[in-house]
Amino acid sequence: MSTIFSQIRDRKIPATFVYEDDAIFAIKDIMPQAKEHILIIPKKEIATMNDITDDDTLLLGKMMIAASKIAGDIGIAESGYRLVMNCNENAGQTVFQIHMHLLGGEILQSGFGGKQ
Amino acid sequence: MSTIFSQIRDRKIPATFVYEDDAIFAIKDIMPQAKEHILIIPKKEIATMNDITDDDTLLLGKMMIAASKIAGDIGIAESGYRLVMNCNENAGQTVFQIHMHLLGGEILQSGFGGKQ
Repeated sequence: MSTIFSQIRDRKIPATFVYEDDAIFAIKDIMPQAKEHILIIPKKEIATMNDITDDDTLLLGKMMIAASKIAGDIGIAESGYRLVMNCNENAGQTVFQIHMHLLGGEILQSGFGGKQ
Repeated sequence: MSTIFSQIRDRKIPATFVYEDDAIFAIKDIMPQAKEHILIIPKKEIATMNDITDDDTLLLGKMMIAASKIAGDIGIAESGYRLVMNCNENAGQTVFQIHMHLLGGEILQSGFGGKQ
């Protein structure tokens, strides 16, 4: 299964890269939901957070390290940011390649999920 | 610095544990923002996501592995769930010990951060 993120990874579709290493890349979201909205994506294809295994532990940790570093790079570390991952329908996952949203640059909504 | 989560870790304050291993524990949020709302917390004290280092990579990955496993255990894996981490003021971080929110059991809001 090749998602849009794999095509971006392979430079078949353009995107604004803000970070890349052997395991991970990060791009600007083209439909930002906050002033700063970056997607951190593993190069390995993993459809959902239900498909991760213990072998992915280091990779998943690297995504969080990258998110923190990018937040510093784009100047939103001190003011604050939110990291979000959505899995399947109830969370509105639309691209079936795991990806972490990094949102910041403004005061974010206090509610961040449920409708209660 | 001892936060409420360290006191829960040390059984000085009660909470409903749903998971625990050498590095991590998970509890039910006492003010749930969705039908299911679990907090996944490292036992190591780390104030914010700005304070993580490369040495924490495996620990951070374990938090995500635990979140995925707990979602399965509580029966929300297939319907879906959201993982959220908040850092500092713009994201509304209130307890200065890193923690991951696991939200699910219902359809979550499509917007998950910014006000746009």
